[in-house]
Amino acid sequence: MPAEERIAVFDQDGTLWVEHPMYTQVIYCLDQVPALVEKKPELKNVAPFKTVLSGDREAIAKLPLSELEEVLAATLSGMSVDEFNATAKKWIETAHHPRRKRPYTELTYQPMLEVLKFFRDNGFKTYIVTGGGQDFVRVYAQQIYGIPTEQVVGTAGATKFGYDKDGKPFLTKEPKLLLNDDRAGKPEGIHLMIGRRPHAAFGNSTGDREMLEWTGAGPGTRLKMLLLHDDAAREYAYGPAQGLPDRKVGTFTSALYDEAKKGGWTVISMKNDWRRVFYSRPRHVNLKFAT
Amino acid sequence: MPAEERIAVFDQDGTLWVEHPMYTQVIYCLDQVPALVEKKPELKNVAPFKTVLSGDREAIAKLPLSELEEVLAATLSGMSVDEFNATAKKWIETAHHPRRKRPYTELTYQPMLEVLKFFRDNGFKTYIVTGGGQDFVRVYAQQIYGIPTEQVVGTAGATKFGYDKDGKPFLTKEPKLLLNDDRAGKPEGIHLMIGRRPHAAFGNSTGDREMLEWTGAGPGTRLKMLLLHDDAAREYAYGPAQGLPDRKVGTFTSALYDEAKKGGWTVISMKNDWRRVFYSRPRHVNLKFAT
Repeated sequence: MPAEERIAVFDQDGTLWVEHPMYTQVIYCLDQVPALVEKKPELKNVAPFKTVLSGDREAIAKLPLSELEEVLAATLSGMSVDEFNATAKKWIETAHHPRRKRPYTELTYQPMLEVLKFFRDNGFKTYIVTGGGQDFVRVYAQQIYGIPTEQVVGTAGATKFGYDKDGKPFLTKEPKLLLNDDRAGKPEGIHLMIGRRPHAAFGNSTGDREMLEWTGAGPGTRLKMLLLHDDAAREYAYGPAQGLPDRKVGTFTSALYDEAKKGGWTVISMKNDWRRVFYSRPRHVNLKFAT
Repeated sequence: MPAEERIAVFDQDGTLWVEHPMYTQVIYCLDQVPALVEKKPELKNVAPFKTVLSGDREAIAKLPLSELEEVLAATLSGMSVDEFNATAKKWIETAHHPRRKRPYTELTYQPMLEVLKFFRDNGFKTYIVTGGGQDFVRVYAQQIYGIPTEQVVGTAGATKFGYDKDGKPFLTKEPKLLLNDDRAGKPEGIHLMIGRRPHAAFGNSTGDREMLEWTGAGPGTRLKMLLLHDDAAREYAYGPAQGLPDRKVGTFTSALYDEAKKGGWTVISMKNDWRRVFYSRPRHVNLKFAT
């Protein structure tokens, strides 16, 4: 039998596409609240749904993590897998980044698309290993990254198998967390979903630390790379490593920077190392998303 | 971006290789008990470990499921992922089937190896979807089926990320079940690990029913096949479908047979449809297993 292909893993938010001012999936979830309240009117005057419905951006940005998680759970579960895929597909096809005024699917990083292709051309299997929702990222991963559905590892909830009134089977997304694919959950998720240690790992924040450590602990040569967002002019600048502004999303601490330098990991400076940041879709290309 | 390959899923025990008189993994676990008791002498005189150590085959065969599960949990968790892989690899390279007197790795079904190759040659990605342990099957799947580690979906436990005294990261296998990949757990596991509906599914028992239903419920043409073990002379005969003997392992009920006939699923008769049953390894081929 032929040898197995080697594995290269990529964080998504902040590594393959933009994550500021807020994770794309969180914006998706906030956008689903009006439809949710229409189905469940009892949520209309209840926090945090009331705040989200108000449209008050400052108040929404200040929601505590526990209340934000309540919105995520309510908008990412309770429907069938097919319903979720259809809704997420429709959203991603039309939603635009608030500052860039372009579809999120065009806010992927051109150099990283080239890295993905380079690895695939050299016999690697490319995986996304994201703290974001596995089902959400799977909706567009093939079309924008060339990464098939089954090569997306992410935070995943349980599903429940059942039958509709005609006896047709369906899967319901349950509000039960199976894998929190962030920090230590990333190597755990890699073991669960891939089962082999990667030869290369790319990330950009403290959420990727354990994944890079796990990759680096294997025998032989392993590539570990972190992207530093130090380009306020072309994208965003945040750290707090290297004295960059400290933000809640995509934190790159000085401790992580020190560990990278000590461990021989490569830190990519978006400002100095990238000639071009964003992918620009040729006008004749029409994206088609998975259903 | 290119279109995604289609998915074909295969149960393992009883579909790709022999499962009688007992699941191979259960025999592996029983074989690990002496080493376990050496590490934990307090188990020596405690049920069910005492029974297993006695070597009394009849008594072992009569162990209730709850006690057997205790043996499985104790021998499949509590060690690092690397330790488990090394132990399982060593075992599978040397263990022999009690009746056939051949390595388990040679008790794969020749027609199914041909089916796997046929699907791969025609642009399908082949997956194992097994009620057995994901980590166990992954040790040999590439070598005996040409199915890479990451294309094995099975019953899976949690792992826990940590560091050894030198700061080197490792993963420990925990006694916490994440996915019970049997019956309704099979479509749930397919969603978790693959995320797309298969175009073809192969099984041989009631544990595969929901997987075939889920496969068949997709649009377009879907292939659903069940293998009936009706060949006492060349392998084993068990049902109880079609009046075959009723056994605890790999039950194929009359209800499943009726559902297959009604739903247009194909039932393969091992006795009538297979010219040859077992793969015979050419003498010059040396198997190498994953580590």
